[in-house]
Amino acid sequence: MSTSVKAFGTEAKDKPLKEMTIERRELTLQDIEIDILYCGVCHSDLHTARNDWGGTVYSAVPGHEIVGKVTKIGKEVTKLKVGDYAAVGCMVDSCQSCDSCNQDLEQYCLNGFTGTYNGKDKHLGGRTFGGYSEKVVVDENFVLKIPKNLADSNLAAVAPLLCAGVTTWSPLRHWNVKEGSKVAVVGLGGLGHMAIKLAKGLGAEVTLFSRSPSKEKDAKELGADTVVISTDETQMKLARGKFDLIIDTVPYEHDLNPYVSTLSVNGTLVLVGFIGELDSMLQTPTMIMGRRSIAGSVIGGIKETQEMLDFCGEHNIVSEIEEIKMQEINEAYERMLKSDVRYRFVIDMKSLKNN
Amino acid sequence: MSTSVKAFGTEAKDKPLKEMTIERRELTLQDIEIDILYCGVCHSDLHTARNDWGGTVYSAVPGHEIVGKVTKIGKEVTKLKVGDYAAVGCMVDSCQSCDSCNQDLEQYCLNGFTGTYNGKDKHLGGRTFGGYSEKVVVDENFVLKIPKNLADSNLAAVAPLLCAGVTTWSPLRHWNVKEGSKVAVVGLGGLGHMAIKLAKGLGAEVTLFSRSPSKEKDAKELGADTVVISTDETQMKLARGKFDLIIDTVPYEHDLNPYVSTLSVNGTLVLVGFIGELDSMLQTPTMIMGRRSIAGSVIGGIKETQEMLDFCGEHNIVSEIEEIKMQEINEAYERMLKSDVRYRFVIDMKSLKNN
Repeated sequence: MSTSVKAFGTEAKDKPLKEMTIERRELTLQDIEIDILYCGVCHSDLHTARNDWGGTVYSAVPGHEIVGKVTKIGKEVTKLKVGDYAAVGCMVDSCQSCDSCNQDLEQYCLNGFTGTYNGKDKHLGGRTFGGYSEKVVVDENFVLKIPKNLADSNLAAVAPLLCAGVTTWSPLRHWNVKEGSKVAVVGLGGLGHMAIKLAKGLGAEVTLFSRSPSKEKDAKELGADTVVISTDETQMKLARGKFDLIIDTVPYEHDLNPYVSTLSVNGTLVLVGFIGELDSMLQTPTMIMGRRSIAGSVIGGIKETQEMLDFCGEHNIVSEIEEIKMQEINEAYERMLKSDVRYRFVIDMKSLKNN
Repeated sequence: MSTSVKAFGTEAKDKPLKEMTIERRELTLQDIEIDILYCGVCHSDLHTARNDWGGTVYSAVPGHEIVGKVTKIGKEVTKLKVGDYAAVGCMVDSCQSCDSCNQDLEQYCLNGFTGTYNGKDKHLGGRTFGGYSEKVVVDENFVLKIPKNLADSNLAAVAPLLCAGVTTWSPLRHWNVKEGSKVAVVGLGGLGHMAIKLAKGLGAEVTLFSRSPSKEKDAKELGADTVVISTDETQMKLARGKFDLIIDTVPYEHDLNPYVSTLSVNGTLVLVGFIGELDSMLQTPTMIMGRRSIAGSVIGGIKETQEMLDFCGEHNIVSEIEEIKMQEINEAYERMLKSDVRYRFVIDMKSLKNN
């Protein structure tokens, strides 16, 4: 027994997204059914729809920045009740028993977490379908609570916290950013603008590295203390040895060395935006003579995601968004490819339901 | 007022080392004069003598693994007294006031530490002269105490602890290796053999990565639990996701990716052996999908060096050495270039004094 719901997805890598019907499973004892009100649009959605990373199985329905309201709960669900606001991020399941899962690091599940879309669906077979749809059914362990003040004031702008938010929050926390830490962010997009807000919220002194002077005004409005133009050698020299942590959100190939030089002793540059091979000659003297590190990080665990949402509630932090209709998704993808969005598209799901 | 002492050094990058006379300064109130009994031979000695890294000023007298006996002390010296065993490592001074120095991280002194050789000599001008000499005069803050049991039983084999020892000790401690940690060491030379002994001493499960099956017997005698032949794809696959920390001692260009794949979630590969540009395509998915890091590390701070010596005293750890005469240094360099040493040459300074 499953339920048919409307969704938006694609049948092939070179086809636009269009309306389709998908199945959502009957609730298990631990499941929560969510009526999706808004869904953020992440670069991963586009990469999956177009099979840029390989491995996409069609039909593909993207969307992993999901917020909505609980409409049904399984008999053993305790986390939420019908009518509550609820959110789902990039994962809908994991093995829940490996060393990583036991440490609340489901994002590093040794048996592979189940992605919210294009993951192996343990219930219905085939692949999971994401948030570009009317409803979703998810194990309560992978459902998040939304702070009431944020849900009441700007629910749409909460959606991007579920991926862009936690992806930058997790390294900020793992590398222990606190009051007075010196944090730099490379690139001002969906991830970068959240990194600035969250680092600032944690009390850090925040610098944006950008190639474009035109980003300065926005960056400062978002909370950056300083903007360093990365193509300006004088500015880059002045920044040497400065940062405890650099969150590198750049989604294409780039040279890491100019940034590594700006790390302090014991500093870490963490890659969160680029999945692929990075042809960056490692200048080991810079790394060795200051115990500097280059690391990677992906999203965050469920406990950590809840912590981030609660923190955002306390500090009134949400994403900067542009609302679109579901039917505008293909143009939105084209605009994202040109970085023509400040700073995240969020789909209003009424547009799908009322169509 | 300074004192002339016999030393062994070189006048140019393409000339062999030979006996020469150098000056040692009159003791300041904080200085200790050490009669050098043994000096270890590090790859850096050879690189400096031959100007492989640039920046060598001639005459150059290498040697930064120094052990000996205190022969004179300045009036305010409290750390050691005449007749005590004493050691000097890679540094003889630093600014002693920057953020790094204030954290006992003199090796990352923001104003640059003073190398034991080829460093800028603040007292006599010109460059510092290293341990290939009869005596050395050093600020007590940069002199180490040698545990009595080691000094009495095998003083010569203590010398390499001052560079090879602390260079591997520092990352083992910084990345918190303890009972049950899974540590791998890449390369079995002067650094690698100390990394195995020290990691084992800390209670870790230790693996050696080596290209050569002939290293297996030695590695196990030194304390390695396992040897993985890095050219054997099957063995490398079996090692995936395993190590909390990898100490990479390889002193030439090599691909890091096969090793990064063997890191566990949150694992770090730390480069300690190669100073230069490393053309290693970073496979960001491996780093990102397991929060894996690549880092660098150089020697260790003075406090940490003393801690390491004390630990070695408690655990009876010394280096595996081959004693040579000072006059054999040029042949020793040639043998080091062929990795023909198990595992560190140490010069018996009687050979210089009695010549």
